[in-house]
Amino acid sequence: MGGDRGPEIVATAAIEAAKSDASDLDIVLVGDRKSIGTVLGRERSIPPNIEIIHASEAVDMAEAPASAIRKKKDSSIGVALRMLKERRVDAIVSAGNTGAVVAGSLVTVGRLHGVSRPAIAMFFPTVKGWVVVLDIGANSTCTAKNLLQFGIMGSVYAKYHLGVNEPRVGLLNIGEERSKGTDIVKEAYNLLENGHLNFVGNVEGRDIFEDVVDVVVCDGFVGNILLKFGESIVSFTSNVLREEIKKSLSAKIGATLMKGVFRSFRSRLDYAEYGGAPLLGVNGVVIISHGKSTVLAIRNAINMARRLVTYDVNKHIEERFMETAGQIAKVS
Amino acid sequence: MGGDRGPEIVATAAIEAAKSDASDLDIVLVGDRKSIGTVLGRERSIPPNIEIIHASEAVDMAEAPASAIRKKKDSSIGVALRMLKERRVDAIVSAGNTGAVVAGSLVTVGRLHGVSRPAIAMFFPTVKGWVVVLDIGANSTCTAKNLLQFGIMGSVYAKYHLGVNEPRVGLLNIGEERSKGTDIVKEAYNLLENGHLNFVGNVEGRDIFEDVVDVVVCDGFVGNILLKFGESIVSFTSNVLREEIKKSLSAKIGATLMKGVFRSFRSRLDYAEYGGAPLLGVNGVVIISHGKSTVLAIRNAINMARRLVTYDVNKHIEERFMETAGQIAKVS
Repeated sequence: MGGDRGPEIVATAAIEAAKSDASDLDIVLVGDRKSIGTVLGRERSIPPNIEIIHASEAVDMAEAPASAIRKKKDSSIGVALRMLKERRVDAIVSAGNTGAVVAGSLVTVGRLHGVSRPAIAMFFPTVKGWVVVLDIGANSTCTAKNLLQFGIMGSVYAKYHLGVNEPRVGLLNIGEERSKGTDIVKEAYNLLENGHLNFVGNVEGRDIFEDVVDVVVCDGFVGNILLKFGESIVSFTSNVLREEIKKSLSAKIGATLMKGVFRSFRSRLDYAEYGGAPLLGVNGVVIISHGKSTVLAIRNAINMARRLVTYDVNKHIEERFMETAGQIAKVS
Repeated sequence: MGGDRGPEIVATAAIEAAKSDASDLDIVLVGDRKSIGTVLGRERSIPPNIEIIHASEAVDMAEAPASAIRKKKDSSIGVALRMLKERRVDAIVSAGNTGAVVAGSLVTVGRLHGVSRPAIAMFFPTVKGWVVVLDIGANSTCTAKNLLQFGIMGSVYAKYHLGVNEPRVGLLNIGEERSKGTDIVKEAYNLLENGHLNFVGNVEGRDIFEDVVDVVVCDGFVGNILLKFGESIVSFTSNVLREEIKKSLSAKIGATLMKGVFRSFRSRLDYAEYGGAPLLGVNGVVIISHGKSTVLAIRNAINMARRLVTYDVNKHIEERFMETAGQIAKVS
């Protein structure tokens, strides 16, 4: 029911996914049966691997997350999370209120063994491909131990989702030297260095695009600001280019010849290309999609959910935490 | 003596500035007399309004700031700051070790009356022009009161430097609602709201390019990461475009026709266009330039210094702090 455009986009994407991947996906649409039914009603045929589960309430995009989860027991997010907890589904995807998904996940499915704080992991574009940045919004303030755990979870995620063997992990900071930054990041540097990771040290803002690391660790405050800044680059640069192109006839002709280039440019810089961001560290696969998601973005989010289930990323995260339990216990 | 390319760039820029602005500028080059002399020796004529003051030491770019300032009494930064303190100069410009300039300024010239923490203010490009972001690196951690003071200083700076009458001030946060973010930014929201500023509330990462505000308030950790991320946009987007252009002949032709557009694009997105960033809140005009500054950037920094002196921005900051002294005292 969430997202800035309600069930329309999500249901359409689900139908497309169910049709094209009929062999191995069963999709449950959780929300207002009538609204979803309207979308499905427009289809010539409803694939058999799609099902509606009614939820009488919906969490508003602007609603305070914790109280919404507490009060609206029958919200689409709440019902979907209970289904996940009972393993009636393997994963959930939501384009709804991010805070409510995070709060609801903590309350309903809980955390993986050993995890103090779940984190939202997002792909940022780089010159070569993608880099995982976490946390991008689940935690405004973090301890050094939280940051260590983000490094571990991000590393496992990059390994299984991007297929990178020993993912390079960097700590986002204001300088390369270990003496830089806040007390918390300085402590996190020490923990990450001893965290049995391929830790390459501090990375700066300029390194994010540069394929210097596969995983960037930061708190959710910095990560969220950076994400939204980054997401706005395409529209900003396109506006500037458009204005400059207007000023000259030859540039206008040049721009016409470069149409395909600009299309590729936009798609390579599209943060939503991956379609969603997993909430890592909770006991189930939870994918958070942008409120402004397109049908393609939701389809990609569904694929992401499938990959996380297929590769059993959560099991690997728990194993990794068990291995380093001694190390983590030391600092907790 | 600072900057990644030593006195070469700085001395060249100083000569150009002294020549072109001979009417009202007297420039003192502080540093190793011999190195500076070599640069000056290449000139056909040395303008009379340029002078060398010898400093036998130089702070290295990677040196620990506080101890460098303490130990190297005769460093170029140290000597220049003493000249500023004694008002033998009206302003200093340095492309050297930023931390050393900040630490040295605090020790030597001290703070303006009422200021708890100075902040470095940097111009970021927007769709319409520029926005002042502060702090971009003087303080890794900040209190709510520090953030309020940054708002006041940034507002005065934008008024006199950008010529904006009632500068719109925004607080960088992870959502629009006042309930968002860390405890410190929530408290800062309340202070800024009551700070006799044109405070427009929280701004998010995506608002920075959008000409929503004239001043963005944040701590130096977030600000520095954002600045370096932003500075890397031009090279990243250029790389992506270049790769895509290579793939097609018509795009190559188009790109040739668009050469002028790409030049304007780069210059409009050039964070160094303004040439420097003032350290606001210290008792003297101190401009910090990028270690990678070009001759043009240093010349712009010299112009910035001149403007801050001409408009007596520091006097206006002090007046503004006196006016709101009651309000600030309440929270200290």
